[in-house]
Amino acid sequence: MSNTRMLPLLEPDAPEAVAPCCPPLTERPFTAEEAETAARMFKALGDPVRLRLFSAVASHEGGEACVCDISDVGVSQPTVSHHLKKLKEAGLLTSERRGTWVYYRVEPSVLSAMGKLLTISPAAA
Amino acid sequence: MSNTRMLPLLEPDAPEAVAPCCPPLTERPFTAEEAETAARMFKALGDPVRLRLFSAVASHEGGEACVCDISDVGVSQPTVSHHLKKLKEAGLLTSERRGTWVYYRVEPSVLSAMGKLLTISPAAA
Repeated sequence: MSNTRMLPLLEPDAPEAVAPCCPPLTERPFTAEEAETAARMFKALGDPVRLRLFSAVASHEGGEACVCDISDVGVSQPTVSHHLKKLKEAGLLTSERRGTWVYYRVEPSVLSAMGKLLTISPAAA
Repeated sequence: MSNTRMLPLLEPDAPEAVAPCCPPLTERPFTAEEAETAARMFKALGDPVRLRLFSAVASHEGGEACVCDISDVGVSQPTVSHHLKKLKEAGLLTSERRGTWVYYRVEPSVLSAMGKLLTISPAAA
């Protein structure tokens, strides 16, 4: 009985996004494939600048922010763009252009899937 | 009002360990210091082999495993040791030598702290 596909896939407007995956880390040893998918998400948050940008978007009103709202992390604009691209590629953010600005939004299904990975299951108690 | 120190520090037998930190990513933008600490933990799980080893320990009976129990991840023993060391340095595992073998244990406070980071707070809804 596999539950690696229980979680909803991302919206079609996020074509690069990685589907959420995998049972809690404490439930059973991950397969190689599960580990590849989940590691990609963790790796995306494994950089301090990316994490600051991500939390700036995630904590912004409505869970959405314009680049103009979140660039105050002490790095150049191209570096900000580079990191936002990485977060999109990992499926953690989606983006939408509206007029002059690109707006970034947290993908809640991915965030909750990562949260579930870190759930401590009764089996590990 | 800072809540970066709310979570318990690790046991003194894990001197290299990183203290759990930080509010949910959705609560407010992370400071540079919070991002450094949290990114270190995410980065440790951002490698497929490390993630498989971690989930092998985490899902093992009693949340503890001997190296002899978890080396079946398709890499050499020195590589396994290298990755286990990285997980210890990030504060995700603790270890204890008992007789011939070293036993690894998941640090539950770190796991739950990381889970809390990924909680979706009402502010972001």
